[in-house]
Amino acid sequence: MRMYDIIMKKRNGGTLAEEELRFAVNGYVTGKIPDYQISALLMAVWFQGMNDTETAVLTDAMAKSGDMVDLSPIEGVKVDKHSTGGVGDKTTLVVAPLAAACGVKVAKMSGRGLGHTGGTVDKLESIPGLRTAFGQQEFFDIVNRTGICVAGQSGNLAPADKKLYALRDVTATVDSIPLIASSIMSKKLAAGSDCILLDVKTGSGAFMKSLEDSIALAEKMVAIGEHAGRKTAALITNMDIPLGNYIGNSLEVIEAAETLKGKGPEDLTEVCLSLAANMLYLAGRGSMGECMAQVQAALRDGSALEKLVEMAEAQGGDGSVIRDTSLFPRAPYEYQVRASCEGWITRMDTEAVGISSALLGAGRTAKEDSVDYSAGIILKKKTGDYVREGEALAVLLASEKTLFGESEKVFMGALEFSGQKPEREPLIFARVEKEKIVRF
Amino acid sequence: MRMYDIIMKKRNGGTLAEEELRFAVNGYVTGKIPDYQISALLMAVWFQGMNDTETAVLTDAMAKSGDMVDLSPIEGVKVDKHSTGGVGDKTTLVVAPLAAACGVKVAKMSGRGLGHTGGTVDKLESIPGLRTAFGQQEFFDIVNRTGICVAGQSGNLAPADKKLYALRDVTATVDSIPLIASSIMSKKLAAGSDCILLDVKTGSGAFMKSLEDSIALAEKMVAIGEHAGRKTAALITNMDIPLGNYIGNSLEVIEAAETLKGKGPEDLTEVCLSLAANMLYLAGRGSMGECMAQVQAALRDGSALEKLVEMAEAQGGDGSVIRDTSLFPRAPYEYQVRASCEGWITRMDTEAVGISSALLGAGRTAKEDSVDYSAGIILKKKTGDYVREGEALAVLLASEKTLFGESEKVFMGALEFSGQKPEREPLIFARVEKEKIVRF
Repeated sequence: MRMYDIIMKKRNGGTLAEEELRFAVNGYVTGKIPDYQISALLMAVWFQGMNDTETAVLTDAMAKSGDMVDLSPIEGVKVDKHSTGGVGDKTTLVVAPLAAACGVKVAKMSGRGLGHTGGTVDKLESIPGLRTAFGQQEFFDIVNRTGICVAGQSGNLAPADKKLYALRDVTATVDSIPLIASSIMSKKLAAGSDCILLDVKTGSGAFMKSLEDSIALAEKMVAIGEHAGRKTAALITNMDIPLGNYIGNSLEVIEAAETLKGKGPEDLTEVCLSLAANMLYLAGRGSMGECMAQVQAALRDGSALEKLVEMAEAQGGDGSVIRDTSLFPRAPYEYQVRASCEGWITRMDTEAVGISSALLGAGRTAKEDSVDYSAGIILKKKTGDYVREGEALAVLLASEKTLFGESEKVFMGALEFSGQKPEREPLIFARVEKEKIVRF
Repeated sequence: MRMYDIIMKKRNGGTLAEEELRFAVNGYVTGKIPDYQISALLMAVWFQGMNDTETAVLTDAMAKSGDMVDLSPIEGVKVDKHSTGGVGDKTTLVVAPLAAACGVKVAKMSGRGLGHTGGTVDKLESIPGLRTAFGQQEFFDIVNRTGICVAGQSGNLAPADKKLYALRDVTATVDSIPLIASSIMSKKLAAGSDCILLDVKTGSGAFMKSLEDSIALAEKMVAIGEHAGRKTAALITNMDIPLGNYIGNSLEVIEAAETLKGKGPEDLTEVCLSLAANMLYLAGRGSMGECMAQVQAALRDGSALEKLVEMAEAQGGDGSVIRDTSLFPRAPYEYQVRASCEGWITRMDTEAVGISSALLGAGRTAKEDSVDYSAGIILKKKTGDYVREGEALAVLLASEKTLFGESEKVFMGALEFSGQKPEREPLIFARVEKEKIVRF
């Protein structure tokens, strides 16, 4: 088999065979196939695409390039949840305890934030004492004892993805749906859960800006998961507006805790209940209606809140800050962003809002950067709200006053005003499962 | 400027600016831009193409990556001629003396054969004593004295092309018209002639198999040449059938010499007269009719034959073998290929005929291989001829008897027979000049 022929075949619109894809991935990981042939193949894939079988095989080869986590020491059905990333997206902090409180096992690995999006691991680490690095046995023990553990990515998970992603990143081949799908799913397959619920964000704050692209990505990922024998589904959720009102690390933990107390914002509560109900549904816990009833009960009776406290403590953290979020250290400086005109907010460029928060210290530009847990933004107004001149739009929080200027500029640039009230967009656009798309 | 943005722009169908193309070429040659980014760009170019200006700028950057030969020490108008390569294509050996006999200066660099096509330098070196390696001053002196010199490629001509070609060769990006055009023309521009006549071969023995692709390639190359201030034109000639009847190294010199004596095959004679007339036309030697009359006269009066003898001797060779071609060493073994059926020859896969000749020792598979000057094929029948069972189709010539078996098999596989006489194809399909295509 020659790499040349594989590139030529894909370039000419052909379908790559299983052995050709495995040859390419394994050859690249072992250094037998050079970068320049792989980048030519990636560009050919960018133009010609890959069908579901090709994408599934590619993903399988990438997953198997490293450790395949075996979660069988954990009893019960293990359900994973993955978000493609957004601004103010603290859903894992709400959804994982909701699902675990209903009895499914959440043995989850999460990532750190980069660029305009936050990461669950950073947010969790804003809880004093909380750890996200565990040995395998400790991770299993926590899940077996409490039903839930959210750890940072460890071990040698999908090294082929790391190498391929780094190459895509410098050859303008990142934005290819089969390549994005295989990148995400290779890590999910390696992480070992039985069921995978995907939260595919769409809109100005998401990686996928258009609904159709988001649905296409969801379809590809669901096809990969099902091909690998995992029960997989996706919700397409709105990221054209930040989710909830708090953006930052401890700020998002605070909002998640309030949501589990039944005092969260409507949008966040609705999306989290749907995501959790879908996790239960994948785990075979009844009809969608029955699953929704279970998660609503777990919210109402406080058991989901207790589960988050339990998880925080099992991971070495101080659970009291969940019960009383005022115990979180508050940023030393606050700044009110005020409206300079009157009207309806018709649009928030959500990526820009995320950047504005990162500029306050809540995010990182490079992987090596540290984050400021207490920095961030509390939104007072969002798309669809009416504002008067001088009214507060948001509170910026930071550890240095000098950070407010640039952050406010970016934040204000993200907003559009008009004399006309905009139409309200749905929170959840569609549900994608195996060979089926339901649009709401 | 970032290479990433250049790849992205081309991938998305944009037009690259002059500084972007120069940045990419110069960065690649100096090792600042890695292979894997260039191969991604090449694949994007394969899909998106390049317009005439982009191709001209790319070619200029490639040409200027090495030595730009200055032919000004040679008086008069210097006309180059380039063939895209074929089987039995000994036109340079006829055309260059014809043009030089008419007073234009031919200061030409030629290549060696590879694969199924032969190379002028190998053919010339079959003349005992003849050299093709010269210092620059000696090369100029020979042309100033005799009007003609055909040398091997020397110096550091278009190193960017060497590096890019090697990368294209392993990344399935060879067959892109703008990339082929820039590769050929970068060397022609660097070689320094005032006028460039291109012989773009089309058909089964050519690199370009289809007429439309051949015309597109010719248009691109003419646009590049004219953009660089060189008078440039192209003839699209038939390579769906070998040119002339002799294929090999000394065999082709013999046929070229016979053609200059007025005893050559009709097809070769006609194509050579047209090519030579076009060279004169580019050099401003009158109307096309006047130019044709001049080259016909040079053929008729023997001055072109004398010019070939003069050139061979000026290059250190034995001119007597041109006058009396029976003096060429003859291959020790001959083998008659005979027809096993009766009918018209309707098709010759000309690439396969070239491979059959290479298998006898006339060609090389790798650049390091040597060639057997006397080996090759003398065709007795060609497409359009009627053959009876047992009649001789060709004579194979080689230095070892064992070579005949495989060569005959490939040769016979190249032929198709039918009970119906095929239509005769034109020898010259079209003439391409600046913004003008004339189809014949």
